[in-house]
Amino acid sequence: MTPDTDAKTGLRKIEWAKAHMPVMTEVERQLKENGVLKGVRIGMALHVEAKTAVLAITLKNAGADVRLTGCNPLSTDDSVVAALKEHFRLPVFAKKGESNDEYYAHLRAVLAHNPEYLIDDGGDLISLVHREYSGLLKDIRGANEETTTGIVRLRAMAAEGALKFPVMDVNNAMMKHLFDNRYGTGQSTFDGIFSATNLLIAGKNFVVGGYGWCGRGIAMRAKGLGANVIVTEIDPIKAIEAIHDGFRVMPMIEAVKGADFIVTATGVKDIVRKEHFEAMKDGCVLANSGHFDNEIDVTGLKEMAYDIKKVREMVTEFTMYDGRKVYLLAGGRLVNLAAGQGHPVEIMDLSFAIQALSVKYLLTHEMDAGVHRVPLEMDERVAEIKLKSSGVKIDTLSESQRDYMNSWQEGT
Amino acid sequence: MTPDTDAKTGLRKIEWAKAHMPVMTEVERQLKENGVLKGVRIGMALHVEAKTAVLAITLKNAGADVRLTGCNPLSTDDSVVAALKEHFRLPVFAKKGESNDEYYAHLRAVLAHNPEYLIDDGGDLISLVHREYSGLLKDIRGANEETTTGIVRLRAMAAEGALKFPVMDVNNAMMKHLFDNRYGTGQSTFDGIFSATNLLIAGKNFVVGGYGWCGRGIAMRAKGLGANVIVTEIDPIKAIEAIHDGFRVMPMIEAVKGADFIVTATGVKDIVRKEHFEAMKDGCVLANSGHFDNEIDVTGLKEMAYDIKKVREMVTEFTMYDGRKVYLLAGGRLVNLAAGQGHPVEIMDLSFAIQALSVKYLLTHEMDAGVHRVPLEMDERVAEIKLKSSGVKIDTLSESQRDYMNSWQEGT
Amino acid sequence: MTPDTDAKTGLRKIEWAKAHMPVMTEVERQLKENGVLKGVRIGMALHVEAKTAVLAITLKNAGADVRLTGCNPLSTDDSVVAALKEHFRLPVFAKKGESNDEYYAHLRAVLAHNPEYLIDDGGDLISLVHREYSGLLKDIRGANEETTTGIVRLRAMAAEGALKFPVMDVNNAMMKHLFDNRYGTGQSTFDGIFSATNLLIAGKNFVVGGYGWCGRGIAMRAKGLGANVIVTEIDPIKAIEAIHDGFRVMPMIEAVKGADFIVTATGVKDIVRKEHFEAMKDGCVLANSGHFDNEIDVTGLKEMAYDIKKVREMVTEFTMYDGRKVYLLAGGRLVNLAAGQGHPVEIMDLSFAIQALSVKYLLTHEMDAGVHRVPLEMDERVAEIKLKSSGVKIDTLSESQRDYMNSWQEGT
Amino acid sequence: MTPDTDAKTGLRKIEWAKAHMPVMTEVERQLKENGVLKGVRIGMALHVEAKTAVLAITLKNAGADVRLTGCNPLSTDDSVVAALKEHFRLPVFAKKGESNDEYYAHLRAVLAHNPEYLIDDGGDLISLVHREYSGLLKDIRGANEETTTGIVRLRAMAAEGALKFPVMDVNNAMMKHLFDNRYGTGQSTFDGIFSATNLLIAGKNFVVGGYGWCGRGIAMRAKGLGANVIVTEIDPIKAIEAIHDGFRVMPMIEAVKGADFIVTATGVKDIVRKEHFEAMKDGCVLANSGHFDNEIDVTGLKEMAYDIKKVREMVTEFTMYDGRKVYLLAGGRLVNLAAGQGHPVEIMDLSFAIQALSVKYLLTHEMDAGVHRVPLEMDERVAEIKLKSSGVKIDTLSESQRDYMNSWQEGT
Repeated sequence: MTPDTDAKTGLRKIEWAKAHMPVMTEVERQLKENGVLKGVRIGMALHVEAKTAVLAITLKNAGADVRLTGCNPLSTDDSVVAALKEHFRLPVFAKKGESNDEYYAHLRAVLAHNPEYLIDDGGDLISLVHREYSGLLKDIRGANEETTTGIVRLRAMAAEGALKFPVMDVNNAMMKHLFDNRYGTGQSTFDGIFSATNLLIAGKNFVVGGYGWCGRGIAMRAKGLGANVIVTEIDPIKAIEAIHDGFRVMPMIEAVKGADFIVTATGVKDIVRKEHFEAMKDGCVLANSGHFDNEIDVTGLKEMAYDIKKVREMVTEFTMYDGRKVYLLAGGRLVNLAAGQGHPVEIMDLSFAIQALSVKYLLTHEMDAGVHRVPLEMDERVAEIKLKSSGVKIDTLSESQRDYMNSWQEGT
Repeated sequence: MTPDTDAKTGLRKIEWAKAHMPVMTEVERQLKENGVLKGVRIGMALHVEAKTAVLAITLKNAGADVRLTGCNPLSTDDSVVAALKEHFRLPVFAKKGESNDEYYAHLRAVLAHNPEYLIDDGGDLISLVHREYSGLLKDIRGANEETTTGIVRLRAMAAEGALKFPVMDVNNAMMKHLFDNRYGTGQSTFDGIFSATNLLIAGKNFVVGGYGWCGRGIAMRAKGLGANVIVTEIDPIKAIEAIHDGFRVMPMIEAVKGADFIVTATGVKDIVRKEHFEAMKDGCVLANSGHFDNEIDVTGLKEMAYDIKKVREMVTEFTMYDGRKVYLLAGGRLVNLAAGQGHPVEIMDLSFAIQALSVKYLLTHEMDAGVHRVPLEMDERVAEIKLKSSGVKIDTLSESQRDYMNSWQEGT
Repeated sequence: MTPDTDAKTGLRKIEWAKAHMPVMTEVERQLKENGVLKGVRIGMALHVEAKTAVLAITLKNAGADVRLTGCNPLSTDDSVVAALKEHFRLPVFAKKGESNDEYYAHLRAVLAHNPEYLIDDGGDLISLVHREYSGLLKDIRGANEETTTGIVRLRAMAAEGALKFPVMDVNNAMMKHLFDNRYGTGQSTFDGIFSATNLLIAGKNFVVGGYGWCGRGIAMRAKGLGANVIVTEIDPIKAIEAIHDGFRVMPMIEAVKGADFIVTATGVKDIVRKEHFEAMKDGCVLANSGHFDNEIDVTGLKEMAYDIKKVREMVTEFTMYDGRKVYLLAGGRLVNLAAGQGHPVEIMDLSFAIQALSVKYLLTHEMDAGVHRVPLEMDERVAEIKLKSSGVKIDTLSESQRDYMNSWQEGT
Repeated sequence: MTPDTDAKTGLRKIEWAKAHMPVMTEVERQLKENGVLKGVRIGMALHVEAKTAVLAITLKNAGADVRLTGCNPLSTDDSVVAALKEHFRLPVFAKKGESNDEYYAHLRAVLAHNPEYLIDDGGDLISLVHREYSGLLKDIRGANEETTTGIVRLRAMAAEGALKFPVMDVNNAMMKHLFDNRYGTGQSTFDGIFSATNLLIAGKNFVVGGYGWCGRGIAMRAKGLGANVIVTEIDPIKAIEAIHDGFRVMPMIEAVKGADFIVTATGVKDIVRKEHFEAMKDGCVLANSGHFDNEIDVTGLKEMAYDIKKVREMVTEFTMYDGRKVYLLAGGRLVNLAAGQGHPVEIMDLSFAIQALSVKYLLTHEMDAGVHRVPLEMDERVAEIKLKSSGVKIDTLSESQRDYMNSWQEGT
């Protein structure tokens, strides 16, 4: 299947996304009114597909001078790239299936624009500018990072004193991680698995590596689709939560023996590795929903295989010397973006609202170099816009209820 | 997106399906051993995609002389057609997106082969042979029909004395409808919706038209994906079941007012019609998982629309005179096959095992013209093969337990 | 805890039940109007508690001459017995914890009334009259039986030609088994377990013996309460259904090894027996939701135990020679009635509506000796009353939709 | 039903609880070994039932000098009081159904012991000592508080500078609130509702006031029992979470119109009040699972009622002037303790392990007056003991995985 590179297809996808992102529509209105983005050079490295396009266009419409590249070689939608260039005159540097060299060349192309603000996903762009472009650092007023993976890297940098500008921890915003990581990853992982395999989820032993927000989203949806879910964890507290949610918990080395599917979402490398491939059930399907493609040790898998072949568009079959077969989806890259269409539009409406408002926040506040939490008020604002656009009303505290909550003398 | 017509792609899909259909592998072994299919001319009208290909190949490998056409203009996978012709020398008459004329020409091409057995899906082939090819009837020893829709039609024929040969009611086999209609339709409907829309299911008002086996499969999965599900029914008993399963039940005219999604699976026409479009929530997404494309009154929708345009590959936007938009998926044809890949492979393994064994059964038994139930023993046989291939063991009754069940004198 | 024998408590319970049984209220109105029950002597053997009292009173109010006894020595609510006698002048023969001798004496007391109609639960009353009171048979015009267990016994009788009058298979009515067996047993089993143990369900290995309507109700609710559910079955089809519903399926001998709870609902004896007690996990809790108390082999358990003691009101602790403990709830009798309050009121409203209408049906139709299905119309009538009393409206077929369903010529 | 006051019944309940609290067994071992509790005078105000008894006994066994009273007039189990006095020589001051005066007399009796440490539930004891016993404050080394309600009060005190000793915020420990508030309240609320009403949950409109940890536990279980759940909230973020979990969200004034059940769990007063009673559906059942009995405005309800009567042990019927009836469970006090048996034993094993270890922690660390978080290490320790006692193993990070998490230079 040749990727579709038609700008018209891309334009339709962008328009469809925009029509389902009412929060972004309101945020755009507010940013325009506010004016702080006018002329600001923004360099973005995000998955280049329709929803991201809406964020880029929103920032551009609010006056920013935006350049965009991808954050993952497999997640680019070429028709969206074409549409952004042709219909929105927005400079984009990305191509589906680009090589590692091209990937880095594209990051550099964004930095060549001398950006004042970076919007990153996974931390590659921020890492690169610190490692190789220290001359640019003085002009950078701040950045956003939206993944667990990226934040782990940035906190490590900050701990070493290596982080030279303030970064908004978009991932930690409630309106981001509670929804994007959980409901977004939950649904889109299955979009990817359905498309890649046409296999049944119901009745299968479905192993989820990691019970963070992403992992519990995947586990919840696997259960909702009829699977028998097994969770692996390193954190005893999360392990006990998983048990109380009705899942079996065991070490990966036990889990692989009966696994029909294994999906990783941990932010750590080598979750499924040689020792696991060795003990794995014949026919097991492997996929990754974590940011980087190292959660499954693909190199190790290749070394152990007797035969490797592509058996469907997004499925590689590895035949072991003992005849067992293992199927890897999307080469171990994020299955939801590489084999599916990424998070549902409405989820990205929330995440990107936080992104856009975080840019505004950082540009209007004095902040130290380091990783900063998104203020609760921003979460609440986004939530209120979302409720309003959904036509949902909620209760408010009365005066006397508020007093009651602040008093300690009333009791039994 | 141009449909993929490459035989190599099709071959891969067929091999992938075959590798995940262990029950069919065992059935093929039994059919070969038995020999009754040798030389029998079989005309098939089913959704032409990879799993159906496995059924056709299985029958061919067991000695039958098979011709295949589609049962729905939108559900054909052209790469599978190419592979069947090129790699399996199997005559296929089907093309994705064929016109109604082509569709009927293809049915006629299958009948031109003077078939002794028909395998039908929806009842078009059986209906056609009775209406226009009465000369062929004398050679037809029997047929299978696998949909609720088709069986309803055949029972109507039988009631009028119009049905001229025995038909196995494959749909009523437990190993078919309990799994295909429920878990198959349940999952594949969302494969179609995900691919077509990239929209979120969680938190949406999701209306399911009909609470038969298909409808409850869809409702169950919609709930499992986080939707708030509303069911519409005409049967008071099923309505009360739906309520006890935690769903809201109301007339369609009420349901449409807050609906984000409406999916029909009733086997009846005009489930969503003009009066409903009129009252429908802005932005509502309409899809059909029933066999025929008349459950949503597309003609009526077109008449009411001010503007109609294709906004994504499988999404048509209808703009009403008052500005409301309604989105129709896959033109109202079965969303799971037209926008998705159809039922999961493992489900079709069960359904097609019943199909293949039903051919054998009818050919080895004297049966009257009319609709016949699949014998319970066949269901149990298929279930046992499935359990064995899954490595699952179950209990058996002891002698004394069996006696106990047959005795009436023991009590408190 | 001494059982409460206060008629005032019983009266309150009956009134509470009656207030939540709107279908019975309508049925009573219809029976009175119809008049066919006037003077008919009815002998009832049902669990004597508040909801049953409403059925007895309804029949009495409609003119019948009713006598009532229990169908299980542990399920009687003495306060309801007192209230029926004192406030409704209805002859009742039952006592909580009565001996086996008393139990049979009470059945005989009901037969002493020379009944014309029997309403039975489990089949003891009908069995007894055939075995020992053949003189009474000529006056008996028919009977109802409402349990799977009872129907199995009666079909065995009928197969031997031993059943001498017509019996309405109330259990098979959809408005009975779909709701009573599934949602009724599902909830009430946990009412019993909660009260008896105060133990947590979430995160536990919960084994359900049998995946019939009762078993799937229990499994569904165990899952809904956070358990990890394992199903045991002898039927391969039901086993595969259970797997597709997300449950593990294995033989009981495997299941017991990790079981925290085992609940039986099969209608067969010796489901959990010596070989299982031997392999059972330390601390396992055993309960039965089937009609008779022989699904768990309590005799065998006693023989194997080193020490037996009551550790809570409804819990007996069996200590094995190797130190393992096994806890038996309610002595192996139906845990939902013996340790809980039985099925929820609204469920019995449906079941008892079928009971009352079945009496009327049999008395107004000529029927042969044997087991008879409840006609679908009765189910639909009860469903309609239920919908109406719940304020729920549903759709109806239009003329053209009805025609469509009856036609076979329309197609693609 | 007269409360059971038999010490033997109480002893059995305590032994049953102890047998299902393996974490407490290990904690007792550690506390004895450590010795820091020896001779410490501890005053406890908790729900006096079997599980609390295990905590009191554990502290006593570790050398503390313990006095116990209740924290809620309706939640005391008199048989446990008797057993604690008779079998464990532990001074207890509590009686089921005690008056408000008795309640406060009992709190004072505990303070009369000149305690060095307080363990509180709801904050009444800590509040009282500050308001009326300032002379005792100098000897108090610290306290625990385990409810959301109590912590809200204590933070208010601390904010005013009124809190005079350090308090461990046991509620905020993950091994407490993630399990106790969510899975504990979730299950025990239904234990209470089942026992009080014998009504069906499936198919009912079930309104949950508040979507905090308690509220989501209740909502999750109501859904698991087949209800159609509606959530009310004041926090827009939680409201959107509830929507994505598949629940309807609306203001209480809308929710009451169709509500069959309303359960509050907010920590705020007057959640259901006069305006709501006025609009409420006939037959609605009201219950509270929050700490104090003011979440439902019972006074207002009484004022509006034409007739008030007790219709079951734990159900009061309020008849309005327009004939509608409203049923209040347990007088508006915590339904899970007043009408049920409180949280499942295994849940309290976790919560009380945190309680006991918090006492040890505070006594071995210098801490300022104020509310203190429980350290993460304590949570992890309790989780590890729990996993071990459950026989569950989990994964551990390898050296290279740990390095990876701390590095920021690796990327795509």
